[in-house]
Amino acid sequence: MLEMQLSRIVIRETSDQQCIYLREKGGTRQFPIVIGIFEAWAIDRKVRDRGTQRPMTHDLLASVVRTLGGTLVRVVIADLRDNTFFASLRFRAHDGTETDVDARPSDAVALAVHLSAPIFVEEKVLETVLASPAEE
Amino acid sequence: MLEMQLSRIVIRETSDQQCIYLREKGGTRQFPIVIGIFEAWAIDRKVRDRGTQRPMTHDLLASVVRTLGGTLVRVVIADLRDNTFFASLRFRAHDGTETDVDARPSDAVALAVHLSAPIFVEEKVLETVLASPAEE
Repeated sequence: MLEMQLSRIVIRETSDQQCIYLREKGGTRQFPIVIGIFEAWAIDRKVRDRGTQRPMTHDLLASVVRTLGGTLVRVVIADLRDNTFFASLRFRAHDGTETDVDARPSDAVALAVHLSAPIFVEEKVLETVLASPAEE
Repeated sequence: MLEMQLSRIVIRETSDQQCIYLREKGGTRQFPIVIGIFEAWAIDRKVRDRGTQRPMTHDLLASVVRTLGGTLVRVVIADLRDNTFFASLRFRAHDGTETDVDARPSDAVALAVHLSAPIFVEEKVLETVLASPAEE
C-alpha cells in the first residue's frame, strides 16, 4: 500500500461529476477520482476550514465516530472494478477491535479529511488507474 | 416529548427544497420540515427499501454506528429558532454511556429510518410550528 495525499479538488458547479486527485506522498504519481457534488463540497469545505452554521452529513459522521469512542485508523482505496473505485475504512473501536467498513471513495476521503486519518491506495489499483483513469 | 412518525416525503426534482412530514403517533397533528434533495433521497430510498449498488453516505453512517457498537436510542426535534429546526441524536455507546449529538433534522430522520430508532418532538416545537410552519 502507498500513502497518498489529497492534492486537488476540482468543482464545476455546472457538471454532475466533480473530481478529486490523490498523489503519492513524497512522489509524483497521481490519479483522479470522479465524485458527486455533495461529497466534493464536504471535502472542499473541510480542506479550506470553512465551517457551516449547521453540521452537515460528514460533520455528523465525524462526530458519531468520536462520540462512540472510535478511531478512523486509515482509509484505503482498495479496489477498482468495472471502472469503479472501492474504498475501505479501517475503524478501531474503543476496546481495540479493528473492523473494515466498505465505502465509496468520496465518503472515505471526506471522513479522512474530517478525522485527519491517512489515505492509502493499493499498488495494483494505482497501476491500473495510471494505465486508464476510472470513475468512482 | 411526543413520539412522531414519518408520514410523507415530497420530492420535487425541479426544486431545491424537499419536504418531509412528521405526524404524532396515534394522533393527527403533523408538520413539514423542508430539507435538501440529497437527504430526501436518502430517506426515500430507505423507506422504500431500495438499495443502491454502493453504500451512500447515510448507509455508511448507519454502518459506523453498528461497527463501533453504538445504538441510536432516539432522535429528537428539539428546538425551532429563527425558522430553523434543530435535532438531537441520543447515542448509547457499548459501555452504556449516553451522549447527545447535534444534527440537522434531515440527517437525524435519515439515520432514524436507517437504524429503526424512534423520532420525538418537543411539545413546544410542535406548538410553535403548528402556529407557523418553518424550514430546516
